[in-house]
Amino acid sequence: MTGKGGKDLPRMKIRPVGIVKSQIKEPSLVVKSRDLEWKGVLENARKERSVISEILIFDDFAGILDGIEDFSHILVLYWAHLASEEDRSLIKAHPMGRKDLPEVGIFATCSPVRPNPICVSAVPLLERNGNILKVKHLDAVDGSPVIDIKPYTPSYYSMREVKVSKWMEQIQREFAQASENKHDY
Amino acid sequence: MTGKGGKDLPRMKIRPVGIVKSQIKEPSLVVKSRDLEWKGVLENARKERSVISEILIFDDFAGILDGIEDFSHILVLYWAHLASEEDRSLIKAHPMGRKDLPEVGIFATCSPVRPNPICVSAVPLLERNGNILKVKHLDAVDGSPVIDIKPYTPSYYSMREVKVSKWMEQIQREFAQASENKHDY
Repeated sequence: MTGKGGKDLPRMKIRPVGIVKSQIKEPSLVVKSRDLEWKGVLENARKERSVISEILIFDDFAGILDGIEDFSHILVLYWAHLASEEDRSLIKAHPMGRKDLPEVGIFATCSPVRPNPICVSAVPLLERNGNILKVKHLDAVDGSPVIDIKPYTPSYYSMREVKVSKWMEQIQREFAQASENKHDY
Repeated sequence: MTGKGGKDLPRMKIRPVGIVKSQIKEPSLVVKSRDLEWKGVLENARKERSVISEILIFDDFAGILDGIEDFSHILVLYWAHLASEEDRSLIKAHPMGRKDLPEVGIFATCSPVRPNPICVSAVPLLERNGNILKVKHLDAVDGSPVIDIKPYTPSYYSMREVKVSKWMEQIQREFAQASENKHDY
């Protein structure tokens, strides 16, 4: 187990448990010329944050959602299925593809393109109807395979006294400002 | 795409990116007689929360952690490798195996045993030394394959005005009380 990629480790094969239905049809962040490229519009960030999506859980798993309606928020794990095998071999990149920010390792970024393209979104659960969940803020592209649903518990996921990197602070400041300057929705 | 388990979906094969080194050798929550069983000791909950673990990222991914040290907290995705295929077919269970609590779907629980046994832990990052991360509070069993590391950003993971189920509130209250009553560590 010394850097050989885990030969003795178990076979880990994902079985999709559902699928995302969303108005978001294209990923905002893609790989181009061996770096990340941001295709989104900063001013639309707030609009995208208010998108309402549906998560359809396959009939094979009937009953597996029972009780989830008693939680106001859930964690959604989905597979960024538009990331190619080659894209996933990217090790370092400029956050959001911005050359003015320091190049960092992919694990220091929120890029959906990573060795295992599993995204984790914490989102408000608006409604459950049988095997369909209606959620807000889910950044998954339409058709993304769903891997797992978990209840969101603040004691486990809401950290205190958190420090983020300087470049992340800068990106978040710019997003916040862009949203404030845009009043037409 | 109608409940057939996602025939048209892409092949989703996980490649381990590292491994957990921990004092925790056995999972606290297991499957027994087609229900969950809690093998942990409530009074030790706080002790377990203060455990310090190491995450070793394989040499193949050199550089992928660069910049992670500028974040105080990270999200660790790992595979609950001791969950068998059969255990993972469990659809409903009593939370923590407690028959006094309502039986719910596995997606409403935090059980590591689930169709895709991927656990998501938000933990303080104490130190980075090359390809080794030292973290606190990681509940992964020794030898767990690591799937992904992400920076923890409060805007994305720290939800406000959260409501959890009654049974979850009860479990959390009992854990908190047990920790308060135990002063020998």
